[in-house]
Amino acid sequence: MVLGLDPGLALTGWALVDGGGGMLRLQGSGCLTTPAHLGEPQRLLALSQQAEELLGMAGADVVAVEKLYFRRNVSTAMAVSQARGILLCAAARRGLPVAEYTPGEVKRAVTGSGSADKRQVARMVQLILGAKVPTSPDDVTDACAVGICHQHASGLRSALAASRA
Amino acid sequence: MVLGLDPGLALTGWALVDGGGGMLRLQGSGCLTTPAHLGEPQRLLALSQQAEELLGMAGADVVAVEKLYFRRNVSTAMAVSQARGILLCAAARRGLPVAEYTPGEVKRAVTGSGSADKRQVARMVQLILGAKVPTSPDDVTDACAVGICHQHASGLRSALAASRA
Repeated sequence: MVLGLDPGLALTGWALVDGGGGMLRLQGSGCLTTPAHLGEPQRLLALSQQAEELLGMAGADVVAVEKLYFRRNVSTAMAVSQARGILLCAAARRGLPVAEYTPGEVKRAVTGSGSADKRQVARMVQLILGAKVPTSPDDVTDACAVGICHQHASGLRSALAASRA
Repeated sequence: MVLGLDPGLALTGWALVDGGGGMLRLQGSGCLTTPAHLGEPQRLLALSQQAEELLGMAGADVVAVEKLYFRRNVSTAMAVSQARGILLCAAARRGLPVAEYTPGEVKRAVTGSGSADKRQVARMVQLILGAKVPTSPDDVTDACAVGICHQHASGLRSALAASRA
């Protein structure tokens, strides 16, 4: 089972995607949020504590996140990266491997096209995982998408390994 | 006593700058390093553990770091930000306040000029803190500089408060 994460300081989306038996199922999803009135170090600590709690309860055996690509807003990129560092560290603290996928890989896995827009991704996530997917915020949809991407990629890896055996 | 930090994933410089009695003294300095053969999440975890150990031993009552400004290399900015998030979180975990200064504020505090170059900053750090400052790596000099900046700023704040009392 994979825990897909969409990192952010104010809001981190998460989705637990099970791929057992070749069928993808959403086992849980939600958001980690940190209060805006706290200072940045305290918000990062709150995120760290929530992430450790989630990883402890979720029963995932791998964590999946998008590789970040920012071209325009560097200060947003830095704020998201600080939160992302906290999440990667929390995964390592629990001994869980982290799989990273580019935004293009995620879109392709979910929609078949690496240039799909946010709406197409959201519609396909709903189709693949069923009505249980919350329609907002985007961050949860994005966490589902990276979870789906990981399950597809690991399914392909298994099939490839089997065909070579 | 302030712990100045210059964050990085491979190498984080640190410097413990004491300002008691109006005289700045370097009480210790060094680097936290993480091995390049590990994956990024494991390196962030190693940095987190070393930072917690350092904060436990150092006896600082405040942590000082530079605000990051990157214009060119966004992927470097993101890697440094992930490490910076780990350090801010470690400070919050120990209940220590974090003071942030812009690169211009640090240069001005150390050299008198906000546009000083790296060499001028290094020379002034040596003059202010004495021969104990290691001349390399730069990261330790930069950690000293932000520590000096914090001591100057808090000295000014105290003087201002006293003049108003």
